[in-house]
Amino acid sequence: MSVLETFAAIVGARHLLTGDEDLAPYLVEERGLFHGRALAVARPGSTAEVAALVTAASAAGIAVVPQGGRTGLCGGGVPLTPEPALVIGTERMDRIRALDPVDFTLTVEAGCVLATLQAAAAAEGCLFPLSLAAEGSCRIGGNIATNAGGTNVLRYGSTRDLVLGLEVVLADGRVWNGLKALRKDNTGYALTQLFIGSEGTLGIITAAVLKLYPQPRERQTALVAIPDPQAALTLLGRARRASGDAVTACELISRRALDFTLRHIPGQREPVETRTPWLVLLELSSSRPGGLREALEEVLAAALEDGTALDAVLAESEAQRAALWRLRETIPEAQKHEGGSIKHDIAVATSRVPELIERATEAVTAALPGVRVVAFGHIGDGNIHFNLSQPEGADKQAFLAEWERINRVVHDVVGEMDGSISAEHGIGRLKVAELARVKPALDLDLMRRIKLALDPDGRMNPGAVLDLG
Amino acid sequence: MSVLETFAAIVGARHLLTGDEDLAPYLVEERGLFHGRALAVARPGSTAEVAALVTAASAAGIAVVPQGGRTGLCGGGVPLTPEPALVIGTERMDRIRALDPVDFTLTVEAGCVLATLQAAAAAEGCLFPLSLAAEGSCRIGGNIATNAGGTNVLRYGSTRDLVLGLEVVLADGRVWNGLKALRKDNTGYALTQLFIGSEGTLGIITAAVLKLYPQPRERQTALVAIPDPQAALTLLGRARRASGDAVTACELISRRALDFTLRHIPGQREPVETRTPWLVLLELSSSRPGGLREALEEVLAAALEDGTALDAVLAESEAQRAALWRLRETIPEAQKHEGGSIKHDIAVATSRVPELIERATEAVTAALPGVRVVAFGHIGDGNIHFNLSQPEGADKQAFLAEWERINRVVHDVVGEMDGSISAEHGIGRLKVAELARVKPALDLDLMRRIKLALDPDGRMNPGAVLDLG
Repeated sequence: MSVLETFAAIVGARHLLTGDEDLAPYLVEERGLFHGRALAVARPGSTAEVAALVTAASAAGIAVVPQGGRTGLCGGGVPLTPEPALVIGTERMDRIRALDPVDFTLTVEAGCVLATLQAAAAAEGCLFPLSLAAEGSCRIGGNIATNAGGTNVLRYGSTRDLVLGLEVVLADGRVWNGLKALRKDNTGYALTQLFIGSEGTLGIITAAVLKLYPQPRERQTALVAIPDPQAALTLLGRARRASGDAVTACELISRRALDFTLRHIPGQREPVETRTPWLVLLELSSSRPGGLREALEEVLAAALEDGTALDAVLAESEAQRAALWRLRETIPEAQKHEGGSIKHDIAVATSRVPELIERATEAVTAALPGVRVVAFGHIGDGNIHFNLSQPEGADKQAFLAEWERINRVVHDVVGEMDGSISAEHGIGRLKVAELARVKPALDLDLMRRIKLALDPDGRMNPGAVLDLG
Repeated sequence: MSVLETFAAIVGARHLLTGDEDLAPYLVEERGLFHGRALAVARPGSTAEVAALVTAASAAGIAVVPQGGRTGLCGGGVPLTPEPALVIGTERMDRIRALDPVDFTLTVEAGCVLATLQAAAAAEGCLFPLSLAAEGSCRIGGNIATNAGGTNVLRYGSTRDLVLGLEVVLADGRVWNGLKALRKDNTGYALTQLFIGSEGTLGIITAAVLKLYPQPRERQTALVAIPDPQAALTLLGRARRASGDAVTACELISRRALDFTLRHIPGQREPVETRTPWLVLLELSSSRPGGLREALEEVLAAALEDGTALDAVLAESEAQRAALWRLRETIPEAQKHEGGSIKHDIAVATSRVPELIERATEAVTAALPGVRVVAFGHIGDGNIHFNLSQPEGADKQAFLAEWERINRVVHDVVGEMDGSISAEHGIGRLKVAELARVKPALDLDLMRRIKLALDPDGRMNPGAVLDLG
């Protein structure tokens, strides 16, 4: 039996794709940055099938690349491997195995779409807090493998903080059972933590136990015009203290970012009368109704008084709230109308974001005069999407050809500030070389040792995260 | 130069202890369960000194055992090693390097006493939530190395959830710098997570960046008489939802545990009029004042109405609150007056605690007729201290001789329920054999691979957590 026949026998012939046309969607990602190739795509229906596939692939010396919803921004799921690999797509493994509102836990298979999990939790009066732009199609296995961030990290943490247990198929096909709903377990090394964020290079996540929270019953949203990014941090600290730590979003928006959305996105309106160089979108939510509005109003009144805020608008309806969020969420789309954009997903200690923006702006302006900084994002987490639009009238291709040089300029500032060159998107294939450039040799050495300890033949998603040379 | 002279040159002669009398306190733990031996005790004053000590020890083939406040309950810090080891005590490394109330972070050296950190945070209007019985003398390096739990895990998580970054001296003396205040960082494997809870077997933690929270300004405490443990979980869920997830403690107390403290601890009084087989201590706290009392009263009124609660008392003053907590905290002390006690620190999924108590009680009663179950603890985390007092009139030594057999009986029930045999105390040296008995071979294999990848010569705290054979 050929190895393809073995794969087909495991998943059933119609779930093993080998034709060019069938394979095509599995070889690329949305933005067309990577084009892979694959021996085949298998769509297993169970953990046992994943284990059998990995065992067979391992015996044949074939690498495996796991795929979820293919919404990753760094190409971690694109099978761009030295030799053609077997792609393992989790889309058929999409059952919710259990939802326990007493435990506040949700036990799911890796192929569940994030939005489906959010809805299942809500139906039981619970909140699954992970929320991000791709939630309608990304799958939870990929979210966990990349330790996805999103808009609720400030209050609920990254995906890492929402996972209690995992089931993982290892490089040799054995199934590791860490699928436990334990809030406390100090019996040895944190294997679950190691698999989270390892981007499929240490094993394939097949199921997870996730944390739920009480569903918020009150939500208050304000857009605040502020003089500088420091004011956003001051407001955040005051709002956290005043609200019982109920701030669930704190998004910084630069004037230029706002102007871009006002200019290019239909139906957007100037949200506040006072024109300031910066704005911050604050959202508070809690399952204890009453009091949040008052807490937010007090914080804003004091801020308007002492100059921390220069103007503010509170959402009076769900429609107004949606409109405020639309201003923030359409920034990347609006940027496309201004020509090429070179992007950075960077983080520093929250208190140092103002300094980061200042230093990085200085550095890129010196490196590429006329470049237009479009800074926005999760300032409450210290995470800024430091995007750069091309100089007005510049040639788009010539500008984008500067991508790597400008990345290095920005990442060098980040490095000097003890920051991260990938706050929430991961490394994938996009940032492997840059990671190798900026990470200390000792970190890379430790990562290599762990990789080889768990995947000695380098068959799990080779080429992602680490270049083993 | 002898290796001892080298050590002395690194830390200064007066910080290298070698005399029997000087060494004595470093070779034991509080309960006298373990007696170690050591080549010497070094008390370094800096990370560089720790690194130099480890480098010198490594070159001489000498193992190292890190020690914090020596309050661990499983002997992880006792130098009971195959060959006499160098003990590295962190007590001189006790500086707070930074406290940033904007970042809500605290950067500290490993030797800081936990209570000192709580006080430093409070002085800036912040909360460092880790709180446990030994907080007056345990040191944060040990808390991190054992992923300590305590009474605030329900709302703030274990130590793991409170650590943003670490500095670690590795087995070969290199210093790993993960000392970053990043809320988000997806640049490779979760090394910080791996070191947390590894009990000194992968490296020596020398410094950490910790998370702070807004300081609570309102606190409400109730002791509720309930018919069964299930009622505690029902109350917890309702209180979480009603309070904006402000429940910071949920401690189950069995009638027998309460009776023991009433009988043996001076000044204790029956807290509620209705005598029930179980009670639960609920505490809510928030930095948003107002509303918590009302939320708790509503939850209790509804519970008294539908039989979830049979009686309840709310603390009306700080003195009353302290009295309620004293009932819970004096249980272990009271137990001492009832003869020998065989202890278990076990956890299952929160919703399964009632079943755990029932099944474990049945199993131990069958194994040792007349044994008196004293169950209490952090039911909100699924973590019960399932202690067993000797049968009335039994011989203490004969009873304690059953320790390992009874442990196995209880841990087998825990295993059948996908639970943990060490929820918050770790493995240390006490539970190495039991861990090897109950953990799947695959888990032990993965742990061994990781240990050998990071400490190939087995020089970091040998004998703790894992028996490398």
